[in-house]
Amino acid sequence: MEKIVNEILKAPKVIVLRHIMADPDAIGSQYGLAQLVIEQGQAKQVLIAGDVPSTLKELPPFRNSSLSLSEKLLTESDFEKATVVILDTSTINRVDFGPLDFSVLNKAQKVIKIDHHPVGLDTHGQPKDNYPKHTIRYQDTSASSTSEIISNLFEVNTYDISLMSLPISQYLYTGILGDTGKFSYAISPRTFNTVANLIRGFDMKDFTEINHAMSTTTLEEAKMKGYCYDKMVVDDDTANIIISREDLNKHNWPADDMARFVNLLGTVQGITKWMMCVQEEDLSWRISLRSTEIIVNDLAEEYGGGGHPTASGILLPANSNNMTIIQEIKEKLISKQ
Amino acid sequence: MEKIVNEILKAPKVIVLRHIMADPDAIGSQYGLAQLVIEQGQAKQVLIAGDVPSTLKELPPFRNSSLSLSEKLLTESDFEKATVVILDTSTINRVDFGPLDFSVLNKAQKVIKIDHHPVGLDTHGQPKDNYPKHTIRYQDTSASSTSEIISNLFEVNTYDISLMSLPISQYLYTGILGDTGKFSYAISPRTFNTVANLIRGFDMKDFTEINHAMSTTTLEEAKMKGYCYDKMVVDDDTANIIISREDLNKHNWPADDMARFVNLLGTVQGITKWMMCVQEEDLSWRISLRSTEIIVNDLAEEYGGGGHPTASGILLPANSNNMTIIQEIKEKLISKQ
Repeated sequence: MEKIVNEILKAPKVIVLRHIMADPDAIGSQYGLAQLVIEQGQAKQVLIAGDVPSTLKELPPFRNSSLSLSEKLLTESDFEKATVVILDTSTINRVDFGPLDFSVLNKAQKVIKIDHHPVGLDTHGQPKDNYPKHTIRYQDTSASSTSEIISNLFEVNTYDISLMSLPISQYLYTGILGDTGKFSYAISPRTFNTVANLIRGFDMKDFTEINHAMSTTTLEEAKMKGYCYDKMVVDDDTANIIISREDLNKHNWPADDMARFVNLLGTVQGITKWMMCVQEEDLSWRISLRSTEIIVNDLAEEYGGGGHPTASGILLPANSNNMTIIQEIKEKLISKQ
Repeated sequence: MEKIVNEILKAPKVIVLRHIMADPDAIGSQYGLAQLVIEQGQAKQVLIAGDVPSTLKELPPFRNSSLSLSEKLLTESDFEKATVVILDTSTINRVDFGPLDFSVLNKAQKVIKIDHHPVGLDTHGQPKDNYPKHTIRYQDTSASSTSEIISNLFEVNTYDISLMSLPISQYLYTGILGDTGKFSYAISPRTFNTVANLIRGFDMKDFTEINHAMSTTTLEEAKMKGYCYDKMVVDDDTANIIISREDLNKHNWPADDMARFVNLLGTVQGITKWMMCVQEEDLSWRISLRSTEIIVNDLAEEYGGGGHPTASGILLPANSNNMTIIQEIKEKLISKQ
């Protein structure tokens, strides 16, 4: 643990990367570590890369970040003699290298992986993550988030809390918030102690404003939510919602955006399984099956779909018979135990 | 601090009370303390009282509570020689005595008040809370909740975590959740350290199920939410929703239930002030004005209403002219800075 911290703090050049389709933990841990190295490390150059989704660009700690202003596309030469730290990314193909690919890691001096996702082992007991051979790994699947790991790794070094600046605390706090659904799941006593240490000594407003920002939605999203609540149908412990192309066209809503609200159906009391059916532009239907506990992916597989036991999906290509099939799946889900 | 704990743990008879219109912190701290005394105190009799709202009766830690099963209406004689602990209740008139009133406190041996609400002082420097003269007070307005105070008071005594049973931890955890809006506001480093101590040693499922339960709504509430999202109108940074008797009758929704969703309007990005107008059965209009920061109670006062700077209300008695007045208030709120 201390070895990794020293490797990072003493490196002359540090690049911090994370996964594609970034979420708050990916960016929070990346910005947090980069800022830690800038403030406490010996590196003359600290670089970050990766696309930031527009919704995250608006979050308070990222919105005014000096790091996001200094962002640029990395080139191959940036990787020369660099210590590359890759965060929150279980397999190498999910690293956001910008226009580059993982072959640039050959130019790096060292590659360090820090992550909380589980990774399978191959027959030689090596992690099946396709990282370069000499990668130094710090993996802790008991942590809520990579931001929690980064906080813990550096807590020793920043025992004097005045050494940890507000931006660092805010970045890491946001990452923990993101991966725990605002302290709803994946929590542990360590999560709460870590947060206590992160926020100590600062004005609580600097953190409650992040909480508030993560609870707000755009007016458009609010209207979509309202539509889902209004249209959902409940049979006993099963909820379903069927949203046709006509419905979506009427409001000019993209099918993808609507599908994001699938878990809204699970927030209604007594609902233990639910399905959302959304018709795509090509008139195919995307069906999402969810449950709190019972297995639903066997039902998905029955119709050519698949996924996780409690979160799976089916794609029905455009066909005049689809509404009959949807009714059939619905009935099977209702009677499923 | 230790004195209060000893007073409670050594008392031969303990009654734990809290405020009317109970919320999760009132019940969480009450049940938590009562269970602590049962498990660790010397009392032969531990009594609680107060009405529990039906929505809270369904929450996991209260639903299966052995305490709720033993509840009964207290009589005057119950108070004889009792140590009465009153939690989370700033002034005596808000204590839930059931069918009794505060005069029964004359029969008590001791009255102890534990609370996190601020109380003004009279000209003699005495708290203006109308509690009996010899009340022993423990007040800490820096605590998120009374449940946080109870946790901290007893942490010393239960340093060996195995002494704190799961129900106690769950009760107090639920109270903290309630008064912080699931760790959204009123938080401090102490809040998070307290939670870490409460949940340590237990299965996290016993707490995440409470998180989940506090995020769910009934189908009826979900439909009401959907209706609010759908009907809300946004002008720049101001949102408004006007719900007539006709609208409510159509869905058979009580005006009171709808008014609970006023803060939903504040969760839309960019909204800094909002108003909800709901028509009561007697055709009067109840208007709620809210803001994130700017003062709105001056506008409320202009129309005979009042309240807090950022949360105030107006009542317009039935009158054919009311829609004009509502439009007027709406315009004033929009242009307010």
